[in-house]
Amino acid sequence: MVSRLNIIKSHFSFLPHPNALDNFREAKINTSLLQNEYYKPNPEIIYMFIDLIKGNPLFDLNGNLEKPREVQRELIIRQLLFLYPKFYAKFDLSSMINRGHFGLAMSAFDLGLSGRYSVHAILYMETLEFLGTDKHKPLMERSLLLKDYGSFSMTEIGHGSNVAALETTAIYNHSTHEFIINSPTPTSTKYLVGGMANTSTMTVVFAQLIIENVKHGIHAFVIRVRDINHNPVKGVIIGDCGAKAGLNGIDNGFIAFNNLRVPYDSLLDRMSHISPEGKFKSHFKSNEKRFGIMLSGLIGGRTGILGNSELNLRHALTIAIRYGAIRLQFGGDKEQAIITYPTHKYRLMPLLAKCFAARMSFRLIIRLYLERKEEVKANPEGFKVAEMHGLSSVFKYINCKYSQEGIQTCREACGGHGYSAYSNLSRLRCNNDAHYTWDGDNDVLIQQCSRFLLKNIMNFFKGNAVQSKYVSFMTASNVEITAENLDCPKKLIGILEYRAHYYMNKCVAKLQSIANPDPKVVWMNSQVHHMNNLSISFGELVAAKELLEFVYDLKNKCLDTGNEIEKVFKLYVLTILEKEHIGFSDNEHRIIEDKVIYMSELVAKSAVKIIDAIALPDHVLGSVLGCSDGRVYERYMEEVERAPGCYGKPSWVHLIEEMKKAI
Amino acid sequence: MVSRLNIIKSHFSFLPHPNALDNFREAKINTSLLQNEYYKPNPEIIYMFIDLIKGNPLFDLNGNLEKPREVQRELIIRQLLFLYPKFYAKFDLSSMINRGHFGLAMSAFDLGLSGRYSVHAILYMETLEFLGTDKHKPLMERSLLLKDYGSFSMTEIGHGSNVAALETTAIYNHSTHEFIINSPTPTSTKYLVGGMANTSTMTVVFAQLIIENVKHGIHAFVIRVRDINHNPVKGVIIGDCGAKAGLNGIDNGFIAFNNLRVPYDSLLDRMSHISPEGKFKSHFKSNEKRFGIMLSGLIGGRTGILGNSELNLRHALTIAIRYGAIRLQFGGDKEQAIITYPTHKYRLMPLLAKCFAARMSFRLIIRLYLERKEEVKANPEGFKVAEMHGLSSVFKYINCKYSQEGIQTCREACGGHGYSAYSNLSRLRCNNDAHYTWDGDNDVLIQQCSRFLLKNIMNFFKGNAVQSKYVSFMTASNVEITAENLDCPKKLIGILEYRAHYYMNKCVAKLQSIANPDPKVVWMNSQVHHMNNLSISFGELVAAKELLEFVYDLKNKCLDTGNEIEKVFKLYVLTILEKEHIGFSDNEHRIIEDKVIYMSELVAKSAVKIIDAIALPDHVLGSVLGCSDGRVYERYMEEVERAPGCYGKPSWVHLIEEMKKAI
Repeated sequence: MVSRLNIIKSHFSFLPHPNALDNFREAKINTSLLQNEYYKPNPEIIYMFIDLIKGNPLFDLNGNLEKPREVQRELIIRQLLFLYPKFYAKFDLSSMINRGHFGLAMSAFDLGLSGRYSVHAILYMETLEFLGTDKHKPLMERSLLLKDYGSFSMTEIGHGSNVAALETTAIYNHSTHEFIINSPTPTSTKYLVGGMANTSTMTVVFAQLIIENVKHGIHAFVIRVRDINHNPVKGVIIGDCGAKAGLNGIDNGFIAFNNLRVPYDSLLDRMSHISPEGKFKSHFKSNEKRFGIMLSGLIGGRTGILGNSELNLRHALTIAIRYGAIRLQFGGDKEQAIITYPTHKYRLMPLLAKCFAARMSFRLIIRLYLERKEEVKANPEGFKVAEMHGLSSVFKYINCKYSQEGIQTCREACGGHGYSAYSNLSRLRCNNDAHYTWDGDNDVLIQQCSRFLLKNIMNFFKGNAVQSKYVSFMTASNVEITAENLDCPKKLIGILEYRAHYYMNKCVAKLQSIANPDPKVVWMNSQVHHMNNLSISFGELVAAKELLEFVYDLKNKCLDTGNEIEKVFKLYVLTILEKEHIGFSDNEHRIIEDKVIYMSELVAKSAVKIIDAIALPDHVLGSVLGCSDGRVYERYMEEVERAPGCYGKPSWVHLIEEMKKAI
Repeated sequence: MVSRLNIIKSHFSFLPHPNALDNFREAKINTSLLQNEYYKPNPEIIYMFIDLIKGNPLFDLNGNLEKPREVQRELIIRQLLFLYPKFYAKFDLSSMINRGHFGLAMSAFDLGLSGRYSVHAILYMETLEFLGTDKHKPLMERSLLLKDYGSFSMTEIGHGSNVAALETTAIYNHSTHEFIINSPTPTSTKYLVGGMANTSTMTVVFAQLIIENVKHGIHAFVIRVRDINHNPVKGVIIGDCGAKAGLNGIDNGFIAFNNLRVPYDSLLDRMSHISPEGKFKSHFKSNEKRFGIMLSGLIGGRTGILGNSELNLRHALTIAIRYGAIRLQFGGDKEQAIITYPTHKYRLMPLLAKCFAARMSFRLIIRLYLERKEEVKANPEGFKVAEMHGLSSVFKYINCKYSQEGIQTCREACGGHGYSAYSNLSRLRCNNDAHYTWDGDNDVLIQQCSRFLLKNIMNFFKGNAVQSKYVSFMTASNVEITAENLDCPKKLIGILEYRAHYYMNKCVAKLQSIANPDPKVVWMNSQVHHMNNLSISFGELVAAKELLEFVYDLKNKCLDTGNEIEKVFKLYVLTILEKEHIGFSDNEHRIIEDKVIYMSELVAKSAVKIIDAIALPDHVLGSVLGCSDGRVYERYMEEVERAPGCYGKPSWVHLIEEMKKAI
């Protein structure tokens, strides 16, 4: 066998060659500057992660690809055990933002790893922090030391987005100062709870608080779910939700409650509490409103999703753009790299532009969070929280859409090899896909942004000044579509302002036209083509503005680099306009189309260099097609030969003989 | 443990309830009639398959979901061993169309199973049949009896779509009457060959024929790759391509040749042969042209893809529509099924319309093949073959796009539960994805249709009559967009005719405007927004016409049923127009948008009933969310509890203790 492998090795030894990617590295881009700027804020956490996992066999994506679910989960715990003490020693992980950056660094390698950590460190801990009071601080401390491992039991098998209708009950017993938690129906089983199946010792459970037969709305309770021997505590049934579309390293589980008794202090009581007389007390009268406010502070998960989805798209583009520069096809005697074909540039370059925009919206939310985190606690009903919530809601919708569609396009752009598991594209697609529903279904969530916008618009229509500086399109006017205007950044922003303005008017007209007394019916019937488009046009406008600011800043630091990324900005706006129906004439459409092709052409000239700057290193990327040295086929063969059973016969080879005798 | 499970079982026992899907089954549709009509042609093969696998533990999708790659492959061979003799006894499998229908029946259950069979029964056998001569007939017979198991070695690791540039060589040695087959470079290794890694005993290999140092273009050779002990024959290296995005039950492998000597009769010599004097003889002078003609007859695989992709989309819609009728969310005290919301109808109903269109294009190609199969052999350069090739090329592009995007939308429409493996949606997405590149990359393949159309157009512009009846848009004129016209089937077809006409003019203008002497450059730069759109508008026009014929036919048989499907037809056209830029005014766009919403509303009223008619039975569908009795959560819990390790601790539970001591 050894000799056989040797023959094969020599057969497949690809001759040493210069890095073919170098042919595409002539753009004037200062890659280290661009990297520094792009990786902000907090690049040191990702750099430390990159260094730590390099050459470490515990972090071997392709080598562990086909391991069973149980082993994937074990591996992730081992990875966490390796990483956590090192990051804990170096960074203040009592800060949620640091925990978030640590999670994002892990996401760059494996969303399963970061997800496993984030349900504890973001979802569980943020809930304790935001909804708990001083008496819950020791639990925070235990969490930070991993003495407790928490999870987030909100979704039920029968209820997802409509969290206000959760069925789990927490009945207060004043005589014992306890709550009795129950899953009164099969549909009330808490479901797909990350970390529940195997890991959690603690959870926050969202349940309908009932005092003396009166419902007081959904509240959060922190409870222990497993005892010291890691057995489920009496009164709970815990199980594993089994195989998923991806992220099988995350142990999503279900939990059902059967008269679980928990002490009064389980209630996370910052927003409501029960008086010594057994009376319900709350700052907020309306149960629905209180619950909305309770959720409004939990933005760590969503912010992570904005970052993760950009990261997944960036990975996919790293793979498709590098492979496109290496893969030769057609062109007669001297075959041409597929990235030199107009159709290929048109497929990939608009996605690169979207990737930059997605990064900017993520950074904006981080910045707003840092500016406003005190306000979120002190004045959760305030305008600044609503603004941040509106923005993050639509950004989640946009970033997920960009990334999922983008990964699919990148996979297609890599042809048959894109279907190999070692391309990593299918893993990215399967993992990224979870973002659609995590933290709220996108198609429901976007309506939160619509509500925010409508409030602003109505306020403006009443003659008041516009409150949010992001809602900048109220008085926008039409910009002429000419080749010249489409080349001017400010005019491009102006067109996006007009687009949002256009949808605003369309929405208002629609809302007024529906002659139904029930506002719910009016709302339901004004989503498609109206409120949805308004929200998206708003989100994309804000992202484009942020990207333009990034370009200006970059230009100040290095004009050449800034100029290249300015082209990316222009392509971003053009890509949006290309698919639009906002009253463009046939001729205007053609001008836009031509410009998209032209800008795709220009961006393609610097695409490999841009990817060099923003890509993560090969050992983090984990794709044979996207390696930075361009030795695609060699690395591909290495992985294929390393996989189990590459050479030799399968255990069931006798069935081939049976087949010959089948007829 | 037993008692624990019993407690759990009783806890999760969902009360008996009437089938909640019945609330959505009021439409006047004769489901058995619609099923008969939709399943044509050859429904008896699929019915036999459905019956045979029912209750058979060998066909348990969810039970085998997480088995390793090697076991998946074993399972498929066992399934084939079970099925093949039964179908062989009942149907004449020497007919390719019957083999194709058998393959499609298996696809309904698992694309891995049908793929494993089809590389042998379609790709290998069709090549023997189409390119071989009488002396190859014994090989056909052996294949039919499964004495040989063949594969199709065309793609190389370095060459996919550009098959004319394949590097594998077959050097003729006149003195021994042999060919010597070699993989002269690492990039020439035959790659991702279905069935090669474990199963194949034979293959057809496509190689550059060289006689006395003169290249005569790519030819096909039938060769033995494994000996009687199932070891690779001397002169070949065979390996496994490892893990893929999906279809891991298909053993895609690689094969490299090292001076493999094969006898003269290996050459499939219907189109070229070598004279007794050692001279190359061929009906076709140009190597490129001959190769194109060689490939033009191999349409079995593509036809299968048209059918499979429709099937995958139909499955996804079955799941999403039924789940949408069961899943309740929002709506106050009495929660509403999500399918009653306008946004949800708008997501799913246009896809249902596309599914019908995809089915029609598949059936059209089957019909054309049956009519023309003699002509394909006798006159492969003829117009009728070119027409069929043009149509099948664009249909592959369209059907794959409809299905892949549609499956993704269905998955999103199922929320978090759509991410469960037991929904079957991710399996459908991963499997269907292979179609993009199988049988030629879609983005390259669509250009074959463009070439066909351009030839027709140029011919017409020269004053000749239009040859193809499908190219019906030459003299189409604009149709006014009014609510009334959008309700008239003939006017809708007229608008699609005009759309193709519009793109024809746009293309011609573009081609004339590019001032470059190199026709390749002109071609390359006229794809995006031009030739591609022309081809798509042509394909969708033909599909819409076929669908309208289907509706007319149905109306004759049952007016009520026909009327319901006529709405589906209207929605299909409207869905296309909604995204279009063919000079519509702002107002016209709004009329179309409103009509799409309105028609989605109407189709949604009968959607569950339509799905009842066209869906495959639950045991073939394999989705807990799509079950026909509406007991979604119950079946979901059953699968989750049946999966390995639902209850109890994982083997690595000690690591949880380590974690508590990590800091």
